[in-house]
Amino acid sequence: MQDSIERSTTNTAEHSLFRGLASALLVGALPLIAAQALAWDGLVEKQVFEMEEYTTVSGATIAPVRVGWEAYGTLNEARDNVILITHFFSGTSHAAGRYAEGDEAVGYWDAIIGPGKPLDTDEYYIIASDTLVNLNAHDPNVTTTGPATVNPETGEPWGLDFPVVTIRDFVEVQKALLESQGIEELHAVMGASMGALQAYEWASTYPDRVERLIPVIGGGVADPWLLATLSAWAAPIRVDANWNEGDYYDGEPPLDGLREALKLVTLNANHWHWANETFDRSWADEDADPARDIHARYAIEQILDDIAAARAEVADANHLLYLVKANQAFMAGHGDSLEEGLTSIDAPTLMLYSENDLVFAPEGVRETAELIGADDTPVELIALEGGRGHLDGVVAIEQAGERIRTFLSE
Amino acid sequence: MQDSIERSTTNTAEHSLFRGLASALLVGALPLIAAQALAWDGLVEKQVFEMEEYTTVSGATIAPVRVGWEAYGTLNEARDNVILITHFFSGTSHAAGRYAEGDEAVGYWDAIIGPGKPLDTDEYYIIASDTLVNLNAHDPNVTTTGPATVNPETGEPWGLDFPVVTIRDFVEVQKALLESQGIEELHAVMGASMGALQAYEWASTYPDRVERLIPVIGGGVADPWLLATLSAWAAPIRVDANWNEGDYYDGEPPLDGLREALKLVTLNANHWHWANETFDRSWADEDADPARDIHARYAIEQILDDIAAARAEVADANHLLYLVKANQAFMAGHGDSLEEGLTSIDAPTLMLYSENDLVFAPEGVRETAELIGADDTPVELIALEGGRGHLDGVVAIEQAGERIRTFLSE
Repeated sequence: MQDSIERSTTNTAEHSLFRGLASALLVGALPLIAAQALAWDGLVEKQVFEMEEYTTVSGATIAPVRVGWEAYGTLNEARDNVILITHFFSGTSHAAGRYAEGDEAVGYWDAIIGPGKPLDTDEYYIIASDTLVNLNAHDPNVTTTGPATVNPETGEPWGLDFPVVTIRDFVEVQKALLESQGIEELHAVMGASMGALQAYEWASTYPDRVERLIPVIGGGVADPWLLATLSAWAAPIRVDANWNEGDYYDGEPPLDGLREALKLVTLNANHWHWANETFDRSWADEDADPARDIHARYAIEQILDDIAAARAEVADANHLLYLVKANQAFMAGHGDSLEEGLTSIDAPTLMLYSENDLVFAPEGVRETAELIGADDTPVELIALEGGRGHLDGVVAIEQAGERIRTFLSE
Repeated sequence: MQDSIERSTTNTAEHSLFRGLASALLVGALPLIAAQALAWDGLVEKQVFEMEEYTTVSGATIAPVRVGWEAYGTLNEARDNVILITHFFSGTSHAAGRYAEGDEAVGYWDAIIGPGKPLDTDEYYIIASDTLVNLNAHDPNVTTTGPATVNPETGEPWGLDFPVVTIRDFVEVQKALLESQGIEELHAVMGASMGALQAYEWASTYPDRVERLIPVIGGGVADPWLLATLSAWAAPIRVDANWNEGDYYDGEPPLDGLREALKLVTLNANHWHWANETFDRSWADEDADPARDIHARYAIEQILDDIAAARAEVADANHLLYLVKANQAFMAGHGDSLEEGLTSIDAPTLMLYSENDLVFAPEGVRETAELIGADDTPVELIALEGGRGHLDGVVAIEQAGERIRTFLSE
């Protein structure tokens, strides 16, 4: 539930400095800081985890399941320095660093993940994986299994025969990934938006494995407002004739619908403070007055369209529909009651949210905090400031950096 | 910018009482209140105003122009007791009363318009007209000229050859309607949302004709947030293949797109307080779990779809696109600057708005009030309470009734 990863390219200066230090170290000129030679160099290697077969919580079988993952820092011998990062609706496992020297874009939380940063790669092994049905199925840096994946049994993409998966399924695949590395417990789990849902689910379902919980811009349940908002995101895809009930893999994909869906995601994840501070009433084409030409548009429309078009190029429409379902189905613990799901959480919890969030109502976030704390689990709720609404949890996370640092060490 | 007129059926008890009194009067049993025999009886007769030809502000000719109108109360001899009511995006001229005895639905502001009510039909002649390009082109109680209208020159519906019209054009047609009744000045102009825009435009363009201004849930300009929101409303129609660049009048109309557009209007015009108080996480079909079936939905989705489908039956997709353009193009006075447009307003102004409005940002409403008052025009700003966000200006207007009553008499 986020828009432009490219906006989160903070800390470029810090990175340049770091690269400078790294170069110096390569020639052995500065023995004083040689200890940092072990520090993560900011370069990310994407890897793939495969399960021969995965049975969903609702009992369907998917074979095989493959998800991409990346990690920053080093797993210690005790394997107890692990922080799992779970990603948002339109995100990927690329939470920090860059894939190659010179890449301009860094992972979405690069501001807080790295050597000496609040999620300190000198201390922690920070791991993130692409979810099942990841939106960006056609991004070369994403590996995910979903409707766009060829089902070996049929030799055709799954399409709508792919089983509905839930946030719990995302967690189960992550658990298998971690276990494949011998990791049995998490120093912390942290995620934004849909990532917060996965974090809640981890802490609720596996309370003995999660030592600290950091949910960002997300509540413990998809409330009716979120059900309807997600429904609106799905709608343009279903209207697009190319969608063809999900069967479009040997024809034209429903790109118009997908673009409009992603435009709505961008808009809902932001706030009018952002829109009104960033844009004005300029026309998209200075020769085409929208007050005189039914085809003419304003610049803000064109820019939102352009962002959506770029994102649609690597996204898959059916994957978006499955993500909508996974998010809608979410209630922490996936049991009979929200109270039960949230009081199951034992991990000390640091919640970050925005009072201007138009996706997860702040009232719902506060209620979530109360329910987690109802059995005296320590909960701290911090409001993020900024003009981006929901997105402040991604692009303005740095303001909470020092609190996150101390929370991780408590 | 409103959803369900059927929800505004307040004051049924008051109406029953009134009908009781009226019945009593018919048999002459209560001479004490016989003066009320002249009172408006709550029944509305829809009428049609026609202009042989109308030239838009941007210079295009539409011939003929026909708009429906209705009035409550009696025009006095001096013709100086007129209150003009301008309607919202999805509304019509049906602001009060019912079309026939026994009709359950009343006009959207029936709570404040009627005998003895704040907009007292015993005192004022209250008139409302359908706008140009009214959304509900196929509602038998609506008369409007727009893309769905047959252009006599071609014998075909105008489609996208219809000129783009603006809020100023709506005002010009209303002015011609009023002049056809010998009305040169307005005791007040009052409207909600898009109706507020028309009210601002009246007071800015014809300051000598407007004695009082009551804009409800609307600001003086379509800010970038509103430009983008309106753009999102238009999007599903454009994705629908049946839209066919607006040329669908001899084929299947783009009903899927129109329904999704209207669903978004309903959602944006409301608020999560409403969604979360009105709905829960029930499934639309108790046998179809949305967490297991990609086709299954939640009840809130089904209900929003049903509301949208009912509204789409009388609406026209091209009309919606033209309304989007008219609202986007709005800046009070349609001149070079918002300051100029708003300081042109001389009428004492009573502004009603909601702090929970997701369509017109409250910051923009406050700025509008400041600009109107910058040259010492009296402005009063009142926040409406309620759980409906933007829609509180329609469904919860009654709370401001007594202030409106005194404002009209000042």
